Amino acid sequence: MVLRNYQAEYKKKTRGSAKIFAKSLKLHVNGVSHNIRYYDPYPFVVKSSRGKSLIDVDDNRYTDYWMGHWSLILGHSPKKVKSLLKNQIEKSWMYGTVNEQTVKLSELISKAVPVAEKIRYVTSGTEATMYAVRLARSVTGKQIIAKIDGGWHGYTSDLLKSVNWPFSESESSGIVNEEKIVSIPFNDLEGSMKILKKHALNLAGVIIEPVLGGAGCIPATKEYLKGIQEFIHKNESLLILDEIVTGFRFRYGCLYPTMKLDPDIVTLGKIVGGGMAIGVVCGKREIMEYADTNDKKKSERSYIGGGTFSANPASMTTGFATLTELKNKRSTYEKINKLGEYARKELGKTSDGKAIITGKGSLFMTHFVKDGVTEIANASQASMCDIKALHDHHFKLIARDGIFFLPGKLGAISDTHTKQDIKEMVSAYFT
Amino acid sequence: MVLRNYQAEYKKKTRGSAKIFAKSLKLHVNGVSHNIRYYDPYPFVVKSSRGKSLIDVDDNRYTDYWMGHWSLILGHSPKKVKSLLKNQIEKSWMYGTVNEQTVKLSELISKAVPVAEKIRYVTSGTEATMYAVRLARSVTGKQIIAKIDGGWHGYTSDLLKSVNWPFSESESSGIVNEEKIVSIPFNDLEGSMKILKKHALNLAGVIIEPVLGGAGCIPATKEYLKGIQEFIHKNESLLILDEIVTGFRFRYGCLYPTMKLDPDIVTLGKIVGGGMAIGVVCGKREIMEYADTNDKKKSERSYIGGGTFSANPASMTTGFATLTELKNKRSTYEKINKLGEYARKELGKTSDGKAIITGKGSLFMTHFVKDGVTEIANASQASMCDIKALHDHHFKLIARDGIFFLPGKLGAISDTHTKQDIKEMVSAYFT
Repeated sequence: MVLRNYQAEYKKKTRGSAKIFAKSLKLHVNGVSHNIRYYDPYPFVVKSSRGKSLIDVDDNRYTDYWMGHWSLILGHSPKKVKSLLKNQIEKSWMYGTVNEQTVKLSELISKAVPVAEKIRYVTSGTEATMYAVRLARSVTGKQIIAKIDGGWHGYTSDLLKSVNWPFSESESSGIVNEEKIVSIPFNDLEGSMKILKKHALNLAGVIIEPVLGGAGCIPATKEYLKGIQEFIHKNESLLILDEIVTGFRFRYGCLYPTMKLDPDIVTLGKIVGGGMAIGVVCGKREIMEYADTNDKKKSERSYIGGGTFSANPASMTTGFATLTELKNKRSTYEKINKLGEYARKELGKTSDGKAIITGKGSLFMTHFVKDGVTEIANASQASMCDIKALHDHHFKLIARDGIFFLPGKLGAISDTHTKQDIKEMVSAYFT
Repeated sequence: MVLRNYQAEYKKKTRGSAKIFAKSLKLHVNGVSHNIRYYDPYPFVVKSSRGKSLIDVDDNRYTDYWMGHWSLILGHSPKKVKSLLKNQIEKSWMYGTVNEQTVKLSELISKAVPVAEKIRYVTSGTEATMYAVRLARSVTGKQIIAKIDGGWHGYTSDLLKSVNWPFSESESSGIVNEEKIVSIPFNDLEGSMKILKKHALNLAGVIIEPVLGGAGCIPATKEYLKGIQEFIHKNESLLILDEIVTGFRFRYGCLYPTMKLDPDIVTLGKIVGGGMAIGVVCGKREIMEYADTNDKKKSERSYIGGGTFSANPASMTTGFATLTELKNKRSTYEKINKLGEYARKELGKTSDGKAIITGKGSLFMTHFVKDGVTEIANASQASMCDIKALHDHHFKLIARDGIFFLPGKLGAISDTHTKQDIKEMVSAYFT
């Protein structure tokens, strides 16, 4: 299927963005500060956002399904969060030392996420997964970390392998510890066990997103996760669940309790920061306490997080305000999960066999099938789909319909989206 | 010298902090989210900050010399920065895509920092140095990174070695690439050259803070930096200057042009973020373009930054507002550099031979000499000083005088400090 090219329409309505982006290209590599934010011919430049909408510098309004890298479950700039944030800004946005907001956010997280017996805040998801890996190595005294083919845990050198197809090829030059990372096939217990067993003696842990995010919005089966966990714990290795995307996305808490899993370390981010910079490493007390510097010599401790901005009062406030809203209004989850189900079902129907729609709850992603792909249960299958078609369709939605998906990426529904929005998105998607 | 114990006074005036911190201890490792923020018996809990002051939950006011990990050169919550930030919050604090504020901040940085031909924003200093190292390895195809004994570049696994005395002992368990990091003695060109030459063939680069921060507030000599640079460039390795602390601290721009240095990559953070989460990797065009994903295959490119919060409009706004203030009021530097000089001189005098005061411009640090130390030119000499005495004196200042240094750390003077403040601090310091 070839879509007609919508660049002319796009350029016509985004003249202001073109001018600003030309400057940005001179100043920044690829013109952006995150590779995925660039798309041809140039990304529009946002001047404000509210509710379900991004507004660009040419006053175009886009119904947003990217939603701040899937962080903004309450929509952009939600009133109550904004109000608490403004109060905090009056008191200042940086203290550089201990504040009460941190305790308030942690009280919410520790009640909602049973494994969070001890918490440490860091500044980003990339930092959180780096520390989770370090902890697993410290606790076990072993070195190998297994991750999923296509698993994305940020840019940390400790996990930068097998992210993008072809998974056997390095993700980057300049990485010096790739041999300490092994990669296993998602939702394929037998295939995964073969690799894990080979590395069992030196296996510090496995890190898994319970729903593959960047790699195709694909839920893990309960059987797969249970099987991995059983082996990992018998082997005295650690199970790290990366719930940066999934934490507080489907319910008030993490996804793992719904599958009765028993992770040792959980990483959080995105939603729990309410749109401000955050990463969270949390887990069982006896694991987290390897980071205790009062107790341990420097070569024994696990040196984790940390940083100038960790637990800053602005992030702690937007995180607290967001979780409080979600706690007080549980119907949010019922609503957005239903809208997600509806989106998947209707997109599936209207795709007329051209696409498979994956996802869970309020997350969904379209895969244009080719080469005889009939199911999407892992990142390899997702990579065999027509990724250019997805980009082109997303770009068409931006240019023609004022609907924003970051081209090629999954969609996230927020509390501010309505059934009418979903209907409009569905009816525009394949036409 | 033994100071009397000020814990009783401290506890009496910080009862509210004690209660909140007791909760924090249950929820967090060490009760904090950054190891250095803990001190005995517990850190006070801040409820607001303004100008030169931190105010704790018991309404104690402290004249602050920690200044948000030395980020807040204009003081806490400066009016014009706050005003622009509040305007931005009205428009939202997270877009998840491209915004004009980024271009505005980069225009300022690229004019003030000549080597910043291309810029990429990340979320923290830890991320910035991780990417700088990765770039150096990508560009050179070599693996070893040399750092300084005592050099502190955040928690990235790629640089977590020889930070704290004894430098020969691992900083943390769970690090798998320590053999790719070598450590050289600060301000000792001959000693450094011996080590660099040994690793010359596989040497990707050297990373140096032009003023050692965490390791004792010790300026590098121009001869040392020039000597290292000469060898590094002859060897076709890269010079990375970590100016996260020093950038925009002593002048409007970086420190390196004052020594006519020619770094390949510079990392920035702290001041350029105006108190919001930021890290900056910038450098020569031909180096930075290794990160170009349009141009390079995935195994050839250097996969750098990045992240959900990179170049978010809140950080970009506080950064832009802070640099604009500094640009428009250059007298700030003259003022705070003079105050720093005064502080060092007066502290030196009143210490009466008990201490050596190091620093530069508005940064200063007291070292209580013991074991015959007569100068502080590197982190080893700083580590031989009486670090407990420094902690005790800082704690005394907190408990008795309402003056805050993070115990054991260097002090930073902001535009909101007055000569009278410095006088009061000096006269309290050793008594």
